[in-house]
Amino acid sequence: MIATVSFVPLGVGSSLSTYVAKAVDVIRASGLKHEFHSMGTNLEGDFDQIISVVKACDEALVDMGASRVLIRLSLDDRRDKDSSMEGKKQSVRSKLSQG
Amino acid sequence: MIATVSFVPLGVGSSLSTYVAKAVDVIRASGLKHEFHSMGTNLEGDFDQIISVVKACDEALVDMGASRVLIRLSLDDRRDKDSSMEGKKQSVRSKLSQG
Amino acid sequence: MIATVSFVPLGVGSSLSTYVAKAVDVIRASGLKHEFHSMGTNLEGDFDQIISVVKACDEALVDMGASRVLIRLSLDDRRDKDSSMEGKKQSVRSKLSQG
Amino acid sequence: MIATVSFVPLGVGSSLSTYVAKAVDVIRASGLKHEFHSMGTNLEGDFDQIISVVKACDEALVDMGASRVLIRLSLDDRRDKDSSMEGKKQSVRSKLSQG
Repeated sequence: MIATVSFVPLGVGSSLSTYVAKAVDVIRASGLKHEFHSMGTNLEGDFDQIISVVKACDEALVDMGASRVLIRLSLDDRRDKDSSMEGKKQSVRSKLSQG
Repeated sequence: MIATVSFVPLGVGSSLSTYVAKAVDVIRASGLKHEFHSMGTNLEGDFDQIISVVKACDEALVDMGASRVLIRLSLDDRRDKDSSMEGKKQSVRSKLSQG
Repeated sequence: MIATVSFVPLGVGSSLSTYVAKAVDVIRASGLKHEFHSMGTNLEGDFDQIISVVKACDEALVDMGASRVLIRLSLDDRRDKDSSMEGKKQSVRSKLSQG
Repeated sequence: MIATVSFVPLGVGSSLSTYVAKAVDVIRASGLKHEFHSMGTNLEGDFDQIISVVKACDEALVDMGASRVLIRLSLDDRRDKDSSMEGKKQSVRSKLSQG
């Protein structure tokens, strides 16, 4: 399963990078394959693995002082074939008009 | 915690209401407080309760024949005060300029 | 077209209801059909109408003092038949196992 | 302004990569800075530029035969400082515990 997740801690001002870095640290420590980008972090794993790391990130942000955390999670649960972050990107890239 | 979730089953055509109804049935059977609207269903419960019902909906849609399910989940995890769907709406309504 | 939108102003603390109420006021003043719920507001209109009101809400929150606004917008652009918030809900409701 | 967008065409089966590639082609042709990843494409530009390319992608997918298009758009409108995709990532990277 492939997912993308973003965290918005509230009550901590408008600069969120310290918190986002903490979430990325938690994701890295989980050992799950991930892809960090400018609007979130993509994850590859099974449902329970992904949820477990999302929950750990949420708790870490609360521990850092966030009084409220908004979490956005999108899951792509494909059952008709194996799916990976790299495979999805390659499949699209192979069909781009300019290669 | 308050959440909103939507499910998009793929490989089943462009009319999704039979699948959405199944997800709403699963949510109702869970006993969790919920609010069904035209772009998703809102849920009220703790993290594990919400995730458990989201996973059950996903499995139900796969059982109905979806070869791929896209899930969008937003969680509002407020720790500085009790939070409820009704309380959030009342708080906003009390501040509308036209009552 | 049917849409759902939510706004998260940053740099203003963890209580957002004053800002959400402002956005709902702007939406109401637009005259677009809308459905306010505990995780966002649903809108019914054409693409340009929906975008115009989303932009007006964003500007209103900046005018109120938000130094950063996160906007989440989902659009459901159905071309094979007329679509409305009420019609979508009725279509699902008619298929619920418990009526 | 930084954004992330994803498109889900319905009524075209469960393999969406041909459609996603078309959207990426439209985004490339727009000249906007973008970052393609496994769960969407990030965009950098002003509000009107971003909306213009999102609308062009939607129309292109309808022209390809989609009877319905689901669009998810998240916008990060930062007013207290200049913001870029690269700057956001660097800001987080500089705070990671493992460099």
